[in-house]
Amino acid sequence: MSTALGTLPSTDPRTGERRDTGIAPTDAAALAEIVAASATAFAVTRWSTRDWRAGLLDALADALDADRAALVAVADRETGLGTGRLDGEVSRAAFQFRLFAEALRDGGYLEATIDHAGDTPLGRGPEIRRMLVPIGPVAVFGSSNFPFAFSVAGGDTASALAGGNTVVLKAHGSHVETSARSFAVLAAAAARYGAPAGILGIVYGTEAGRLLVADERITAVGFTGSLGAGRALLDIINARPEPIPFYGELSSLNPLVVTAGAAAARGDAIAEGLYGSFTLGAGQFCTKPGLAFVPRGADGDRIVAGLVERADAASAQVLLNDRIAGSFDEIRERLGAVDGVEVAAIGRADAAGFAAAPTVLTIDAASLTPEVTEEAFGPLVVVARYDGVDDVVRALDAVPDSLTATIHSEPDEPTTVERLVRELAPRAGRIVFDGYPTGVRVSWGQHHGGTWPSTNSQHTSVGVSAIRRFLRPIAYQDAPEYVLPEELRDGYRGIPRRVDGRLELG
Amino acid sequence: MSTALGTLPSTDPRTGERRDTGIAPTDAAALAEIVAASATAFAVTRWSTRDWRAGLLDALADALDADRAALVAVADRETGLGTGRLDGEVSRAAFQFRLFAEALRDGGYLEATIDHAGDTPLGRGPEIRRMLVPIGPVAVFGSSNFPFAFSVAGGDTASALAGGNTVVLKAHGSHVETSARSFAVLAAAAARYGAPAGILGIVYGTEAGRLLVADERITAVGFTGSLGAGRALLDIINARPEPIPFYGELSSLNPLVVTAGAAAARGDAIAEGLYGSFTLGAGQFCTKPGLAFVPRGADGDRIVAGLVERADAASAQVLLNDRIAGSFDEIRERLGAVDGVEVAAIGRADAAGFAAAPTVLTIDAASLTPEVTEEAFGPLVVVARYDGVDDVVRALDAVPDSLTATIHSEPDEPTTVERLVRELAPRAGRIVFDGYPTGVRVSWGQHHGGTWPSTNSQHTSVGVSAIRRFLRPIAYQDAPEYVLPEELRDGYRGIPRRVDGRLELG
Repeated sequence: MSTALGTLPSTDPRTGERRDTGIAPTDAAALAEIVAASATAFAVTRWSTRDWRAGLLDALADALDADRAALVAVADRETGLGTGRLDGEVSRAAFQFRLFAEALRDGGYLEATIDHAGDTPLGRGPEIRRMLVPIGPVAVFGSSNFPFAFSVAGGDTASALAGGNTVVLKAHGSHVETSARSFAVLAAAAARYGAPAGILGIVYGTEAGRLLVADERITAVGFTGSLGAGRALLDIINARPEPIPFYGELSSLNPLVVTAGAAAARGDAIAEGLYGSFTLGAGQFCTKPGLAFVPRGADGDRIVAGLVERADAASAQVLLNDRIAGSFDEIRERLGAVDGVEVAAIGRADAAGFAAAPTVLTIDAASLTPEVTEEAFGPLVVVARYDGVDDVVRALDAVPDSLTATIHSEPDEPTTVERLVRELAPRAGRIVFDGYPTGVRVSWGQHHGGTWPSTNSQHTSVGVSAIRRFLRPIAYQDAPEYVLPEELRDGYRGIPRRVDGRLELG
Repeated sequence: MSTALGTLPSTDPRTGERRDTGIAPTDAAALAEIVAASATAFAVTRWSTRDWRAGLLDALADALDADRAALVAVADRETGLGTGRLDGEVSRAAFQFRLFAEALRDGGYLEATIDHAGDTPLGRGPEIRRMLVPIGPVAVFGSSNFPFAFSVAGGDTASALAGGNTVVLKAHGSHVETSARSFAVLAAAAARYGAPAGILGIVYGTEAGRLLVADERITAVGFTGSLGAGRALLDIINARPEPIPFYGELSSLNPLVVTAGAAAARGDAIAEGLYGSFTLGAGQFCTKPGLAFVPRGADGDRIVAGLVERADAASAQVLLNDRIAGSFDEIRERLGAVDGVEVAAIGRADAAGFAAAPTVLTIDAASLTPEVTEEAFGPLVVVARYDGVDDVVRALDAVPDSLTATIHSEPDEPTTVERLVRELAPRAGRIVFDGYPTGVRVSWGQHHGGTWPSTNSQHTSVGVSAIRRFLRPIAYQDAPEYVLPEELRDGYRGIPRRVDGRLELG
């Protein structure tokens, strides 16, 4: 995807116009230097204090805020996501850095644990003091659809740095200039704060991404992207002499179930909310509800009609790049051609650039097969009509596991809801009630993850516990106090610790 | 390794005599049934309460205690580890079940977190409630060297069951009858307690192990064994349509450093302790100190002399099986032939069965290369002589990362010790001071793990937090209270929870 000059292009998805960024794909020699600098910086950051890192994260957040207008302008030109959404995303990115700073000051994430020496049922036990420590340089792959919150300035970067690691970023080809500017802003702020030069690095180009994952100094990979690209990186990892953790967010259909009661009580509102959710950001959310179970009958018909009406009236949406646009059209055509699928609405796709038409497909829940449950990354929903909850439960066998599952119901349907939760909870990382899965709250308790193929790990990429991905435990046995991290010394106060089996608030 | 009758043999390592166990290798059809039963049982256990599971674990511990004498007798015949050690190991296995029962009653492992709905810097946030839930049927591979504590009745089984999972065991070929008896004891106790029939299953034979890891219903693998066998299982996992977590404990050299001060102050005691540690269980411990840095000069000479004297005087030891014995002899010969390595002592190997001679090799620390830092599973230590700490630090580049690292020092050497900790902490999961790494305390704070090749994960296989390997998070957004697990309801008390960012003891 390089230009005539051998540099990477930046494309305006609203027009398809390409401009030269002047940024060349990172070659093997440059990549090796960048990773070496990251390893050198890690020799410093690994011993840094929680307070120092909290200050660093706050400084990075402030720097994002200070450059907000320019960042949003560049990203809008490269992604077509709109300045309102992008401004909100900068806020979210800044908030993520600040939330991890708060988590550092809290200290609970260290899982500090002290077992004093003493008699046990197995004889005398030595003293054991354990906490979590950083692992090393982490590779973070920017996503196409979140140029800030899941990219250079995103949650993987924030959580890896919070843990005391260094980060080498792989810029996403859809927003090269946004990535470069985000990196410049963060790197300058880190330097002003006094961080070692290699704490953040960035590489460009697909081949550089592969080399990065293969580099033996890289200790973990955070990735958001397609199932195919994720598997390709996993194959590289598995061929390494030393395999490393891969935290991939790969593909998610996010089923949503509307009960009979909810359809009757608030079908119009659900049509409005669901339409807004599956077309938000042109449907380019990993949490987009791509499959909705809607009851048969007049109430359900009204929901479908509400979706169709909105899709028919909508302007064309703009997808992030030509690859996503081409793939969306291809998958939409494939899904629409499956036996039993009816194309209820295809909106307009008459815009310039990488236009996409909001699309509503319908099918009998009984006819749902894995053919129809492929993720279409873009503004498309498959509405599966059902008669009773049994139909939904049976149909779920054709639905891959997801990041989220959603239930719209009424208070007088507890039996139905309990049954649905029992079926959906094993298949998703987050269960949403009477809302929409797009829009992921960044908080202490959030979980953004799930079983394969939504993600490949038992950890989250959003929320405070995302830091656990980039940490490992260490235990000190009978250590003299002066070698212990201060958080593991007897007199230390101010963080939660488990001492002799009992949790103490500190 | 099957007998003429097509069943698996049980071999007495003290004599090499084989007897027919009457147990056939599990074929594909039988394996499929066993895994299906595990999945069926998981549909029950996944919704079980912590109290119910704590009671189950206590019942399993009691059952082990009740069958102790018979278990020890069978294991002694199959492993030659001696009744004293094996009796202690049954105690440890029973203790592990009880410790996880305690952890269940404590409830902190759930990481219960509640973020109430409310205003946030990013606008109004929905309510999020998160906790950890089980993942499904887990495959647990028994180890050769711990027929109880790391096998059928071991920590992987206890932690997986504690989490609400079911377990399918792969019996180790070195102790088929011990595995079968352990399984019978546990399965009977589980049935008496009222657990579903498939909560525990067992398969026999190498091919069954491969099929087990490939089975799509298996959701994680716990493994203790050789690097080669571990990589082979990883390859199977990577070829699955849905990769799953692999928790492998693979290979560990466990360097031990004796400072000049320690050598001067208590060289004789160190020689005695080190000899005891590297020959404990015939050196068949994953935490065996296989490499000891001993200072040059008279004090260090005395330590080496103390090791040599003991090795020369010792009776032959007995290894677990012919493969381990053959491999030990081969590696010992290879190490002994490396340039610069001196064979300081080879004890007697004149016993019947799978005998091994306690062996002491010496080398200049400056000559240490990866050739000499291969793990020899058995009673062998390489003593690297050094002049100053710089020599040790340089030599560590040739040492693979380990489960443990050990420092023997005196109180007046803080500068040396701090430097060694800085070098060793990044290379090991546990740092032991003035003791020996064999003997792993089972406690809340223990960490038994490390970076590749010692283990391939950022989690522990010993201690309470081992349960985290077999859990995943789930988040409920704006859920009606009646669908929430009780631990996530507002009024619930008795477990630690993080509520609106603040940890509460409950």
